[in-house]
Amino acid sequence: MKNVIVTDVPRPALADLDRLAPYGVATVHEALGRTGYLGPGLRPVQQGVRIAGSVVTAVCWPGDNLMIHAAVEQCGPGDVLLVTTTSPSTDGLFGELFATALQHRGVRGVVTTTGIRDTEELRQMGFPGWSAAVSAQGSVKATAGAVNVPVSVGGQTIRPGDALVADDDGVMVVARGRIAEALEKSQARLDKEEATRAAFREGELGLDRYGMRPLLDKLGVRYLTAEEYAREEAEG
Amino acid sequence: MKNVIVTDVPRPALADLDRLAPYGVATVHEALGRTGYLGPGLRPVQQGVRIAGSVVTAVCWPGDNLMIHAAVEQCGPGDVLLVTTTSPSTDGLFGELFATALQHRGVRGVVTTTGIRDTEELRQMGFPGWSAAVSAQGSVKATAGAVNVPVSVGGQTIRPGDALVADDDGVMVVARGRIAEALEKSQARLDKEEATRAAFREGELGLDRYGMRPLLDKLGVRYLTAEEYAREEAEG
Amino acid sequence: MKNVIVTDVPRPALADLDRLAPYGVATVHEALGRTGYLGPGLRPVQQGVRIAGSVVTAVCWPGDNLMIHAAVEQCGPGDVLLVTTTSPSTDGLFGELFATALQHRGVRGVVTTTGIRDTEELRQMGFPGWSAAVSAQGSVKATAGAVNVPVSVGGQTIRPGDALVADDDGVMVVARGRIAEALEKSQARLDKEEATRAAFREGELGLDRYGMRPLLDKLGVRYLTAEEYAREEAEG
Amino acid sequence: MKNVIVTDVPRPALADLDRLAPYGVATVHEALGRTGYLGPGLRPVQQGVRIAGSVVTAVCWPGDNLMIHAAVEQCGPGDVLLVTTTSPSTDGLFGELFATALQHRGVRGVVTTTGIRDTEELRQMGFPGWSAAVSAQGSVKATAGAVNVPVSVGGQTIRPGDALVADDDGVMVVARGRIAEALEKSQARLDKEEATRAAFREGELGLDRYGMRPLLDKLGVRYLTAEEYAREEAEG
Amino acid sequence: MKNVIVTDVPRPALADLDRLAPYGVATVHEALGRTGYLGPGLRPVQQGVRIAGSVVTAVCWPGDNLMIHAAVEQCGPGDVLLVTTTSPSTDGLFGELFATALQHRGVRGVVTTTGIRDTEELRQMGFPGWSAAVSAQGSVKATAGAVNVPVSVGGQTIRPGDALVADDDGVMVVARGRIAEALEKSQARLDKEEATRAAFREGELGLDRYGMRPLLDKLGVRYLTAEEYAREEAEG
Amino acid sequence: MKNVIVTDVPRPALADLDRLAPYGVATVHEALGRTGYLGPGLRPVQQGVRIAGSVVTAVCWPGDNLMIHAAVEQCGPGDVLLVTTTSPSTDGLFGELFATALQHRGVRGVVTTTGIRDTEELRQMGFPGWSAAVSAQGSVKATAGAVNVPVSVGGQTIRPGDALVADDDGVMVVARGRIAEALEKSQARLDKEEATRAAFREGELGLDRYGMRPLLDKLGVRYLTAEEYAREEAEG
Repeated sequence: MKNVIVTDVPRPALADLDRLAPYGVATVHEALGRTGYLGPGLRPVQQGVRIAGSVVTAVCWPGDNLMIHAAVEQCGPGDVLLVTTTSPSTDGLFGELFATALQHRGVRGVVTTTGIRDTEELRQMGFPGWSAAVSAQGSVKATAGAVNVPVSVGGQTIRPGDALVADDDGVMVVARGRIAEALEKSQARLDKEEATRAAFREGELGLDRYGMRPLLDKLGVRYLTAEEYAREEAEG
Repeated sequence: MKNVIVTDVPRPALADLDRLAPYGVATVHEALGRTGYLGPGLRPVQQGVRIAGSVVTAVCWPGDNLMIHAAVEQCGPGDVLLVTTTSPSTDGLFGELFATALQHRGVRGVVTTTGIRDTEELRQMGFPGWSAAVSAQGSVKATAGAVNVPVSVGGQTIRPGDALVADDDGVMVVARGRIAEALEKSQARLDKEEATRAAFREGELGLDRYGMRPLLDKLGVRYLTAEEYAREEAEG
Repeated sequence: MKNVIVTDVPRPALADLDRLAPYGVATVHEALGRTGYLGPGLRPVQQGVRIAGSVVTAVCWPGDNLMIHAAVEQCGPGDVLLVTTTSPSTDGLFGELFATALQHRGVRGVVTTTGIRDTEELRQMGFPGWSAAVSAQGSVKATAGAVNVPVSVGGQTIRPGDALVADDDGVMVVARGRIAEALEKSQARLDKEEATRAAFREGELGLDRYGMRPLLDKLGVRYLTAEEYAREEAEG
Repeated sequence: MKNVIVTDVPRPALADLDRLAPYGVATVHEALGRTGYLGPGLRPVQQGVRIAGSVVTAVCWPGDNLMIHAAVEQCGPGDVLLVTTTSPSTDGLFGELFATALQHRGVRGVVTTTGIRDTEELRQMGFPGWSAAVSAQGSVKATAGAVNVPVSVGGQTIRPGDALVADDDGVMVVARGRIAEALEKSQARLDKEEATRAAFREGELGLDRYGMRPLLDKLGVRYLTAEEYAREEAEG
Repeated sequence: MKNVIVTDVPRPALADLDRLAPYGVATVHEALGRTGYLGPGLRPVQQGVRIAGSVVTAVCWPGDNLMIHAAVEQCGPGDVLLVTTTSPSTDGLFGELFATALQHRGVRGVVTTTGIRDTEELRQMGFPGWSAAVSAQGSVKATAGAVNVPVSVGGQTIRPGDALVADDDGVMVVARGRIAEALEKSQARLDKEEATRAAFREGELGLDRYGMRPLLDKLGVRYLTAEEYAREEAEG
Repeated sequence: MKNVIVTDVPRPALADLDRLAPYGVATVHEALGRTGYLGPGLRPVQQGVRIAGSVVTAVCWPGDNLMIHAAVEQCGPGDVLLVTTTSPSTDGLFGELFATALQHRGVRGVVTTTGIRDTEELRQMGFPGWSAAVSAQGSVKATAGAVNVPVSVGGQTIRPGDALVADDDGVMVVARGRIAEALEKSQARLDKEEATRAAFREGELGLDRYGMRPLLDKLGVRYLTAEEYAREEAEG
């Protein structure tokens, strides 16, 4: 990792981010072929918030939040700050003062592989966060890192200017070049799901709607009554 | 594991399940001699919900929810769906569309050793879930598993038609043949606890109420003042 | 560990504990030079509660809550009960009946490295808890331990009569001899943070306010535009 | 769990266990349709040992090895002792003195979901062990459990008199009624693998030997050169 | 992730890989500015082996090793196979038959974020492996993935044709374009370390050799005798 | 934590440490009433080594090994270096160069809650280590910590000049003031165990030797044949 702060990162259109957010993580993830999810380890510190933003990355040394200070200056309206460390750390690198500064700049939230603190204050001020931990443990400002370089979280590569989508189900990345595709396919999926929902509400089964019975048959799955099953088991 | 879908599973009486639910997990677990708890790894995605239902099991391959589709057809009023995988998986195998189908069929909730997604939607529609993770990660439908075979979760064996009880403290199993015993002993425990609660509210001590002072004495536990203790420690 | 129950432990003044609580964990932890935090593993079972109390310790054998019964008698107004086990255990050693007894005695909450159960009831009765797990698993009363001996949690040593501060960010210890210092320095930090907050709300940057630009420079951190960065990367 | 010690458990023929062991865990697991593996959490404390034995179960309270003492009496030639606890515990419930007693009785090894201690001595005396942890932490003998009741480990149900197979890859269970099938199918798999091994040594590919190319094609997997791939990625 | 198998990946010179291996992971990692380490989660299944190879990636669905079969064909002399899954899986996706095929093709080892099985056989045949788990759990061949696409492991992005270095300390990646730099700087570091080692063997201190005493002083670190420290602590 | 380096720490007699080591961790832990074990998380990087030494502590910031450099100067013959961090870190803070310096000074080994690297070299040079991880991840030297202050590891408080005992079963602490007691009681335990071992080798049972049959009876443990047990289970 080079010790650099990268400026003038191209960003997605704000209007596209605004349209992306309401679809939510599960829908966009499915729409893009089940890609981009950062894993179940990143949990929201609030409930019921759904955002999409252009990512600004900050790479810190464990226990050190110097580069978050540098990252704040690179953040603007519609951004989401993504904080990682060079090796795992649950320390509370992010808290209410950073949230105050970012909220002033129009930033939509923070995602961090470390801990967040001042969680009650964050909920009160309406600045949402997703993190691997909640921790009051404080940090130093002593070691160099980077701002706006590509990072890897949960097996995904995230580049500055990509979109992050986050809600109660976690966080996902949409590459900047695929946002238009994400919007189109998410809407298509939503439409299809609405039809399925309506069918399910009237009692149709997924087995029939998706035509899965032949697959079960081909895979050799057999139907037995509980009695037949018990008999087979007893016979060994 | 045989690749079978077992039908016509005998179930507990709905009325018994309705009576079992309000006791809650901790009480029923204690009433049955501290047995049946599935462990602290299964957490609710909502707060303040207490259910009991007849279990339908679905055993899936990791990252694959084909057998949940097959299980839906086997679910009816008063059931709880229990999903496991042949090896550990946190993927979001269960979401809002499944919940819609199950809710239509009168199912009371879902318990899964995998992840749940669409958690905000599940809370809004009032379909409760307990899971090892919250995850938006989607799944395929490609590999055979089983429905309504016995499964093992958290060191407990659970058979189709057993009762699952679930609330904010987690999930437990009551073997079908022990539900009557569970109801009787839970009520007895509740009565006893109410008396204890009243006594504690008036200042009685557990040490006295349960007669534990002789046990402490027999185990060699000594009372020392802080000063005496400090002196002993200093003397080594 | 000696099998003792230590009585007559000197405690901080109640008024000091009352003044300490509102500062919250993150502030007091920072004020005392980033010390005393018990780590992100202890989580509240409720939201939005902030307490400070004088610690009474109970050391139990795993799966055994005998010594909590002994500890209740040693608890009084303004205390917080801290439960640990001689080796890790997530069992539900603490529940609503203990909470009832402690609430009667004026105890402010419980912190445990084990599990808590009856969490819904605890929230309803307003008795707060922090724990490593939520678990309905019950316990025996068979093996000796200790009450009011020093314990180690999350790398911190906690002595009976120290103050525990707990809120949504977790739990920390303040040695009894440092409570006056904690009060003074927390207030100073609060005042300073209020000024910073005001400045951040008007757009000042931490980089400038804390004079960090020279440090970044000294550490060799360079500013590049996204284009310059891309060019450097391509050149290898 | 009933507090019982079950005697006179029917066991597999020693000759069958002797024949089963050399196949090893991976082969028998595959031969039985990928079933029975107790998961990657149980690791050997030695290297290069492969055993099969008839299982005697001991269910202990966490931190308590009373029931292992009771289990020793139920162990005989060709047995393997399987220790579990009613809730998770890594304590060193099993050590060299137990191993001495069991070795005298012709027992082939120990498998435990807890910790093992005296690991150096166990290696020296040639008594093999598989466990979730290595731990010197000692235990009490105070709480009842059970011997030779069915247990659940790693999602598998294990009944007394079933066969356990264990080697460097971990531990698996073979139901007593399926040992003959396991022997036959393991040999068949071994024969088939030997042919595959010979073919692979001469350069044949699995893709061809198993006829997987049409599957890749059907799943829509495309072949691209690195150049073509780079071009596609750049075009978005 | 596109479902593609990428061929004709440019690779580093074999001679460079041969020169890189003996430096080992810790040295190359330091030489490249403390970058590229895949984390402590990947452990060797053997001891004392040190390799460097050109990476071929295989991305599998959890519990599915179809794409490893496809990857074998893309592997040649001097390569290392790197296996990941789209969501975490500890299943034994890689075993001795794959090793036989790869050894025939001149491949130097395997690294996988999943489990490895047949570990005893791998040690005997001298084919080294690094993995997140040892597991006998078998896999299916049903779902598409990718071969030779970039992957993310342990916060690092790895591209096909990059070098992997692996030894008892774990695994690291060296980008193909930085191998020459890695060789040069590793040798320089080795030379410097040899001088340091010699000095340390004669009793020189790091504090003096690296000139750290002024830093300790600047950071406010004070020297106290044990007596002085005890007095300060007692005074609070 | 104060930023201090404490010198002139009183140490146990070397002869006592030499006598303590051969008893090993499990025996000394039992002899001292099952106290002092640092938990199963600290594992040796070698096999078959047993040491005892006087502890020198180093408290580092995560990812920073500055204070280890300061600690080396405080280490002498018969010492063991114990490294912890202010919040959890698995980074490779300790490696072969430190080992070279310490070996020159007569230090007996290192124990660290972080990672160790250069593990192959450490085994070759015969300098033993125990750690929470093996990791090549390098560290900075930027933030203050402490040397020879009390620390907390695995729920134990360790003071400079206490004895650490370490072997294949892990690590334990013996307070300096209890070393004489530890020696005496360990020998007594050894003698008793030798008698037990001899008895077990001739077939005596622990149940009889320790007189446990009445306890089982009192706890209500019943003996049933497998047939009787099956009948009871069937009757529910």
